[in-house]
Amino acid sequence: MTTIAIPLFPRFTALDAIGPYEVLQRLPDHDVVFIGHARGPVRSDNGFLGIEVDATFEELARPDVIVFPGGIGTRSLLDDERVLDWVRQAHETTTFTTSVCTGSLVLAAAGLLDGLDATTHWGARDILAKYGVTVSEARVVEHLDRRIITAAGVSSGIDMALRLVELLVDRTAAEAMQLMIEYDPQPPFDAGAVDKVDDAVIERVGEYASARN
Amino acid sequence: MTTIAIPLFPRFTALDAIGPYEVLQRLPDHDVVFIGHARGPVRSDNGFLGIEVDATFEELARPDVIVFPGGIGTRSLLDDERVLDWVRQAHETTTFTTSVCTGSLVLAAAGLLDGLDATTHWGARDILAKYGVTVSEARVVEHLDRRIITAAGVSSGIDMALRLVELLVDRTAAEAMQLMIEYDPQPPFDAGAVDKVDDAVIERVGEYASARN
Repeated sequence: MTTIAIPLFPRFTALDAIGPYEVLQRLPDHDVVFIGHARGPVRSDNGFLGIEVDATFEELARPDVIVFPGGIGTRSLLDDERVLDWVRQAHETTTFTTSVCTGSLVLAAAGLLDGLDATTHWGARDILAKYGVTVSEARVVEHLDRRIITAAGVSSGIDMALRLVELLVDRTAAEAMQLMIEYDPQPPFDAGAVDKVDDAVIERVGEYASARN
Repeated sequence: MTTIAIPLFPRFTALDAIGPYEVLQRLPDHDVVFIGHARGPVRSDNGFLGIEVDATFEELARPDVIVFPGGIGTRSLLDDERVLDWVRQAHETTTFTTSVCTGSLVLAAAGLLDGLDATTHWGARDILAKYGVTVSEARVVEHLDRRIITAAGVSSGIDMALRLVELLVDRTAAEAMQLMIEYDPQPPFDAGAVDKVDDAVIERVGEYASARN
């Protein structure tokens, strides 16, 4: 049995966690476990969503795979030695240690990205750079020799997880997962990257982000 | 304030709910509420994920928007008069009543799709057809005169929700949401629809689905 740990924490971004979860949970012989500081519900960035933590970090010290999601709440983890120690020690024996969005900030703070290039949410590239990481604008960045994969903002975790299934099982498994979640994207607009939008969209992002935070 | 209700139930498919949630939750003046039979956690299709229900159906009788997710658990809702009555009555005053994946089976069972064409997960088209609905293979099907939008399997809810934001607010808002979730899809494979995969992938889907159910 392969155990996949997805850490949760107050003010996580839900799709960062649930995109990869949805891809990975359908694999036989793979268990997904949501872990955190304490068992019980934790709330997403705006509090609208509560997800159950089913095991503490210490209760799942040796997962095979880590998928570290992001969210504004990651900022509180960057000096949380309990979390950083867990991720450092768990990474020693994982098959793959991965992140989505600002989850890569936590990997960076734990020292796992030293000497590597990595990706994160477009709005957090400056923070990642402060850790001495070479910031990539790619959607998914792999360092298979170091067993580390980072994905860009929020929805990129779905793309990353499909690649992860290929690595964990095989390509047919990954394609089967893609078909099961009918991931044949047809976004009605082409606004998924900073260099694709005009100033009005950037302004609106700023306006909405300040209204919500 | 616009209130968006997302019903949950035992054995829901998480991404059906969380994809649209992630798009919609960032809009100021829009609240997202996860509702269900009783307050407290309900578990996803395989049980790996528990999400908190924060209000009962009756406590949110008049939402402005409904996003009904799917999952194998929808099969138990198709003769659940409490749920069907709720969706029928709530729909009388919604701005939009929408579904993702097999959530459309519930709308069909409630009679909301009578005389319409609609979409669902590719694996459930035959069930939808039994309700007399004309089954579309489109990713998103809109009937704005009836205030109903249905989306295809699982990940299609993200595409649907971006269109919903355009309808609820404007196109700039929708593009801002797309940028915030960095939805610039780059799936590593092209296997997101039945007509795009070979028999080995279909076989694997069957194998994995029976292992998990």
